[in-house]
Amino acid sequence: MRVNLGKDSYDIIIEQGALDKALEYVQSVYQGNKIVIISDDNVYPIYGHKIEGKLSQEFIVHDIVLPHGEKTKNFDILPEIYSQLLSFHLTRTDLIIALGGGVIGDLAGFVASTILRGVKLIQIPTSLLAQVDSSVGGKVAVDLKEGKNLVGAFKHPSLVIIDPLTLKTLDQRYINDGMGEVIKYGCIRSASLFDKLANYKDFDDLYKDIDEIIGQCVDIKRDVVEKDLYDFGDRLILNFGHTLAHAVEQYYHYEKYSHGEAVAIGMVQLTRIAEKKGMCQNGLSQKIKEVCIKYNLPSIAHLSSQDLSQAISLDKKNINKKLSYVLLKDIGETYIYPSDLTFIEGEEI
Amino acid sequence: MRVNLGKDSYDIIIEQGALDKALEYVQSVYQGNKIVIISDDNVYPIYGHKIEGKLSQEFIVHDIVLPHGEKTKNFDILPEIYSQLLSFHLTRTDLIIALGGGVIGDLAGFVASTILRGVKLIQIPTSLLAQVDSSVGGKVAVDLKEGKNLVGAFKHPSLVIIDPLTLKTLDQRYINDGMGEVIKYGCIRSASLFDKLANYKDFDDLYKDIDEIIGQCVDIKRDVVEKDLYDFGDRLILNFGHTLAHAVEQYYHYEKYSHGEAVAIGMVQLTRIAEKKGMCQNGLSQKIKEVCIKYNLPSIAHLSSQDLSQAISLDKKNINKKLSYVLLKDIGETYIYPSDLTFIEGEEI
Repeated sequence: MRVNLGKDSYDIIIEQGALDKALEYVQSVYQGNKIVIISDDNVYPIYGHKIEGKLSQEFIVHDIVLPHGEKTKNFDILPEIYSQLLSFHLTRTDLIIALGGGVIGDLAGFVASTILRGVKLIQIPTSLLAQVDSSVGGKVAVDLKEGKNLVGAFKHPSLVIIDPLTLKTLDQRYINDGMGEVIKYGCIRSASLFDKLANYKDFDDLYKDIDEIIGQCVDIKRDVVEKDLYDFGDRLILNFGHTLAHAVEQYYHYEKYSHGEAVAIGMVQLTRIAEKKGMCQNGLSQKIKEVCIKYNLPSIAHLSSQDLSQAISLDKKNINKKLSYVLLKDIGETYIYPSDLTFIEGEEI
Repeated sequence: MRVNLGKDSYDIIIEQGALDKALEYVQSVYQGNKIVIISDDNVYPIYGHKIEGKLSQEFIVHDIVLPHGEKTKNFDILPEIYSQLLSFHLTRTDLIIALGGGVIGDLAGFVASTILRGVKLIQIPTSLLAQVDSSVGGKVAVDLKEGKNLVGAFKHPSLVIIDPLTLKTLDQRYINDGMGEVIKYGCIRSASLFDKLANYKDFDDLYKDIDEIIGQCVDIKRDVVEKDLYDFGDRLILNFGHTLAHAVEQYYHYEKYSHGEAVAIGMVQLTRIAEKKGMCQNGLSQKIKEVCIKYNLPSIAHLSSQDLSQAISLDKKNINKKLSYVLLKDIGETYIYPSDLTFIEGEEI
């Protein structure tokens, strides 16, 4: 699959066993000298050695293995990473590979976009969330103490390598996390994807079609990103459920719900409120709720709208205190409803 | 003057008294709500209040005034600046104005390119060096303890406002600093500019044509940048004299020579070595030396090539230990000579 962004275009490979061909794929976009793999201490021990071994046949390869988890994505970690890259004598024509989930992809992507004013980047996402969402679209970022993803860039990789076999080693909760976004893609753009998700028994049943499912999600994201590279318009629909989700995550300091869990709550509750106001098909929120439950996702956080209001006001997306809610008419049909906090007033979310 | 970079195109205004029209010019490219002026404690007291007063008629304006000097450009200062911007509730549709010399332009530019994944930027360069060089071309950066400009981005401003009247309040040494780059533009691209520089009595005499001189320099830079946005080819000629200059600066930890002074040394000495090897017109280095001396610039640092070798090896531009020297055939005619450290071996620089 190719993401068409003029001179920034790049390919996305989705293939079981793609990691075994890492050398071949890397060589297809990179003919330089040196590679630095940035990974975490969960992922590197499973896949890092193997990939490094292969790449070392043709390149000088270094690795930077960081503690796993969101805390690693903090701005304060950057000087240490830059230092290590410089100690490897990285030059502007060398390559960084991000090997891991969303945290590593965002962090290594930001590093690649800023060290020496930018070096090449290959994304190898290993979590479902990163595979269907964060590795495509070019958004990279780190966290400040004031909030998540407040410092970042748009950095397009030279290549994205998705090997769905990596999901076999993923904890169930991380699968659920990714499924929140998978369901979102069905909701915003594809009734057929949504119906498929509704018909599998569970994730194990879905896994037989995993390449195709990931492909459909990535294809939707690719299409949206191509139309709105810098996130000032169409990309907004990718935020279906996310205004409430971010508020729920922030309310619990990112400790109670994973991102995908919060997105599930956001999608179900926002649609429930819209339904109550007669702004979508009857029964739509129930339909979404059932699919969320099938994939072990929650659908309500039992928070009041007051609980969430402050968190929403701080969100950087909420330009000039107006809120653009992404709503569904029906599965696969979205529209933007400009409003503000009054839309959710008095609701339990 | 317009820099043509497709959708990233922008105008450069060069006009005595342009700062008095700051509101009008800002409004021509920005219709948002909030503006943050980033400046330093040398420049802000002279121009900041006045500009802020004008802009406040139509916008909500905040300012961040930093200590002057290169140390302010360190990476470690960033979290404090990001914090201040967030405390002003800056959103993605707001504007940052960089008001100051090269340090402020580089730093504020990097901040504008990374906060919330990028906000609009207007450059108002107030030093000669920033006016003819760093405010045009989109290169922004901060320093790490390992070296200068090691972390950065390409961030094109929405507008550059150059008011040559600001040079009236500039210390003589900063004028000299800028003249190093002005002479460089003559050397690499314009014999007529070089001849003009050779014919003025001194900078005070030159000042009668200052708008035109700045215009010619910016026009050369614009032309080069348009052809090589990301600095992998043609832009190299802008580095005439810079390989040696960076080494001299680094040898003295950026304390003895200003950038422009080091560039003057680099241009004269590199051309002297090339001349000795029969690689350019006879008498060329003397010609450049005389113009440098006229504008109070040094032409030799009395360092040995060994003194400089380590500094050169560390420079991030020296990809794969090969060096691409920018040499002149004659004034206005450059060529690239791929070589290495042996080119300067045994020379006093």
